[in-house]
Amino acid sequence: MSKKLICGVDLGGTKLSAGLFRQDGTLVGKETVYDHRDEQWDEILIIIADLVKRVMRSCSVEPDDILGIGVALAGHIHFKKGVIVTVSNFVHNIYDYPFVDKLSVLLPGMRIILDNDANAQAFGEFKFGAGRGYHDLVFVTVSTGIGGGIIVNDKMLRGKVGTAGEVGHTIIDIDSDVKCTCGNYGCAMALASGLFFPELYRRQLRKGLKSTIGITEASADKMDGQSIEEGMKKGDPICRVIVEDSADVVGSTLYNIYKTLDPELVILGGGLMSFGEDYMNRIQHRFLSHTYEMMAEEMEIKLAETGRDAGLIGAAALVLE
Amino acid sequence: MSKKLICGVDLGGTKLSAGLFRQDGTLVGKETVYDHRDEQWDEILIIIADLVKRVMRSCSVEPDDILGIGVALAGHIHFKKGVIVTVSNFVHNIYDYPFVDKLSVLLPGMRIILDNDANAQAFGEFKFGAGRGYHDLVFVTVSTGIGGGIIVNDKMLRGKVGTAGEVGHTIIDIDSDVKCTCGNYGCAMALASGLFFPELYRRQLRKGLKSTIGITEASADKMDGQSIEEGMKKGDPICRVIVEDSADVVGSTLYNIYKTLDPELVILGGGLMSFGEDYMNRIQHRFLSHTYEMMAEEMEIKLAETGRDAGLIGAAALVLE
Repeated sequence: MSKKLICGVDLGGTKLSAGLFRQDGTLVGKETVYDHRDEQWDEILIIIADLVKRVMRSCSVEPDDILGIGVALAGHIHFKKGVIVTVSNFVHNIYDYPFVDKLSVLLPGMRIILDNDANAQAFGEFKFGAGRGYHDLVFVTVSTGIGGGIIVNDKMLRGKVGTAGEVGHTIIDIDSDVKCTCGNYGCAMALASGLFFPELYRRQLRKGLKSTIGITEASADKMDGQSIEEGMKKGDPICRVIVEDSADVVGSTLYNIYKTLDPELVILGGGLMSFGEDYMNRIQHRFLSHTYEMMAEEMEIKLAETGRDAGLIGAAALVLE
Repeated sequence: MSKKLICGVDLGGTKLSAGLFRQDGTLVGKETVYDHRDEQWDEILIIIADLVKRVMRSCSVEPDDILGIGVALAGHIHFKKGVIVTVSNFVHNIYDYPFVDKLSVLLPGMRIILDNDANAQAFGEFKFGAGRGYHDLVFVTVSTGIGGGIIVNDKMLRGKVGTAGEVGHTIIDIDSDVKCTCGNYGCAMALASGLFFPELYRRQLRKGLKSTIGITEASADKMDGQSIEEGMKKGDPICRVIVEDSADVVGSTLYNIYKTLDPELVILGGGLMSFGEDYMNRIQHRFLSHTYEMMAEEMEIKLAETGRDAGLIGAAALVLE
């Protein structure tokens, strides 16, 4: 292991961070800005390059001291080409944007890797988190949406274009009439993730379930992971049903992952895991209820460990692949 | 490539074949028996060893001329241990049966590999069939059941125990009340494969659809792939619905494979593919209806090419992995 540092860039719709890490995952320095949000993409790249240079300066580091820069963003990435096919969480949309080529002009001589945030987090967990020491694992983030990343034989499984691991968009209820952002009905994401809590809340109201926290069809729009968690703690029956259904869908999705990939380990991360132990237990129970005695050896299920900086450390980890 | 031959053993519930192939897939010799069906497993192994020796004699081949023996059977295999965890298509069931160790005693000095039939067929298609020249593909067999095998970076993806690729048992309709042989409800296999055609036929009768080929709830038991195909040709509306639903479920399952693995190619094999062009077209149409414009590069879908000897040539191919 060389002494060179690894650089991660976590490019979110609201927050943009750049961090320098040692190759063992220790944070050396980090800078965060929020002023990229309304910018055009060419401008966002300039902000990224400036941020990387700023964190390098603050750590007194030269380009030669850095092994490479990993960039993670929520979007549809053509990994091999370093191109953003499309994004959905940003003010300005883009199509087939040659991200790596353009950023390379602004940061000459530095190796740049672009991947989606779920893949980056998966690789971060593999290198520095709950996946250390494993060779085959799947990371699933249950949050506003559901994403994932797959490690096979110590390497990211990216597929032809780089979109492998999108387990949130696998269809788990072909008869469902809940429409996902992807245009399909009955994706795991549409039945279990935060973005759909308003819709799922309204559906329970229409079924006749009573809200005990004063939520109406009109006000259900404000329901997100946090308010569902609060409502559940206050004993709201609809919040409880939504959380239980979410756990069941995630548990069944883990079963589909198991039947498809038979990994050693599935790591669960993302904001909804803060629903707590009952949520995690119900996911595991649902998973095990599908497997019966069919598992010759148990697939482990663990919580993610890289925490709040998962995207950033994951992005940096990509350099070590 | 050495001049050594590769040996395949296709161990089915009714038919047992052993074949010798050149390393380019050319068949050199083949023997088939049916007299293993009622035997205990220790006896089946003796029959296998005798059959392998017989085909070697008929081709004037010595153990040194053979690179190895691949054995394919429909069952739950612990690949790394060479153990049959359990089987369902044989008269006598077994649990944790040390197949490779036991067969090695009967065929000393020969390398033996055991895998399930879908994995073997997948690898056969990869080496000698529709998958030649590809690096990442998924093979799906749609037949009495639904099975699959995954190739990533030119290697079988087997997972921790060896059960990866069982896409037929992924759940695609969590609200379904159709129970699969695995104990779960709403697996792709339970909604689309031949074993469930009697149940699916009865359900359409109960829904009020009329059979125009004289099938009643009592006689629906005889419906299999072949009789459904015949009924469809005669214009029976229930056979048509079953075939259309099957294509839709397979198409949605391919979409889940795409979102999970993003392979270059999916190869479809198995008896139900003889339903013909309309069936294949409907599968492709369903798949594409899910992807919208999300595919940066198209995932190809092709028919299997290794044909009637898919299991045998696939088993032999395992030796080349």
